[in-house]
Amino acid sequence: MLITVEGLDGAGKTTLISGLTETLDAVVLREPGGVELSERIRELVKDPAFDVDPRAEALLYAAARAQLVAEKLRPLLEGGATVILDRFVDSSLAYQGGGRELGVAEIRALNAFGTGDLQPDRTLLLRVDPAVGLGRIAGREADRLELAGGEFFARVAKTYDELAAADPARFVVLDASEPPDTVLQAALAALT
Amino acid sequence: MLITVEGLDGAGKTTLISGLTETLDAVVLREPGGVELSERIRELVKDPAFDVDPRAEALLYAAARAQLVAEKLRPLLEGGATVILDRFVDSSLAYQGGGRELGVAEIRALNAFGTGDLQPDRTLLLRVDPAVGLGRIAGREADRLELAGGEFFARVAKTYDELAAADPARFVVLDASEPPDTVLQAALAALT
Repeated sequence: MLITVEGLDGAGKTTLISGLTETLDAVVLREPGGVELSERIRELVKDPAFDVDPRAEALLYAAARAQLVAEKLRPLLEGGATVILDRFVDSSLAYQGGGRELGVAEIRALNAFGTGDLQPDRTLLLRVDPAVGLGRIAGREADRLELAGGEFFARVAKTYDELAAADPARFVVLDASEPPDTVLQAALAALT
Repeated sequence: MLITVEGLDGAGKTTLISGLTETLDAVVLREPGGVELSERIRELVKDPAFDVDPRAEALLYAAARAQLVAEKLRPLLEGGATVILDRFVDSSLAYQGGGRELGVAEIRALNAFGTGDLQPDRTLLLRVDPAVGLGRIAGREADRLELAGGEFFARVAKTYDELAAADPARFVVLDASEPPDTVLQAALAALT
């Protein structure tokens, strides 16, 4: 079973995943990353020293994801594991397709190629006002994408909402302005 | 004007390009690479320490190419420069589409996304028997792709031939078994 956790930076993904693993017997992986090559790609794509072209950015995320799927995710799922993935294809649809305005359909095609069209069983979307999310991460050092500005994040949030509305059977939309334990209980109720 | 040079490893691309620049006033760039981010991607994709998934490989090449196009190649062409590019999209069509058997159409779509469908004006294809090409590079340390084996290179050579046959207006097919100066004169004759 593949569970993905999605949402804006500062939405509370890390806290939710930490809570989920206290109840569920699951392997946790993060994107981009999870295997060595993908972690190396992560370093490149997040480095504020590079002025990464948006199309190159989308291709790098898809490459890191393809490597994770082939090297680790698919073998885990075929072995019967439950995997919780901190971001997956929906992140690229929202950030590169919506935020960077490259088009959701185009980004979906790249990722269908890269992942062999692997689909999550359930996707937990932590819904938060972009300003609230940005406020929560204001205390820590921002990576390149987190520096992209308010209109960018508004487009990301809108795209997440559209993805969730288009696939209600897979998406579980959680109100991330609620206390963390309330969010966790709602997530567990939806998963079990 | 964009001139690309294509062919198997060991076909003599470097020698030909060196000869061309003695006659033509051109900027020479190589792929993957040409700008810092793309050179960093090159290091990752060619490193024999990684067992790079073929789909991740195709996406990494497309990412390096997208960055080169956006950061350097398109500005040079818009400024009126002649650019000689050591490998471009046709390399991915031949190596990943044909060699890795991922499909030429699929790889073409990734690269159309990455490059904004930028097309070379002329493509010099150095045609060489795969065994001859591999023999020429036998003395130097092989990178990850050069270790892929004879059947792989036979598929690459076949795909190059099919690409050239499908677009004779763009492709100039050169017999790389001829002496280097003969190849150079044939290339110059075709370009001018």
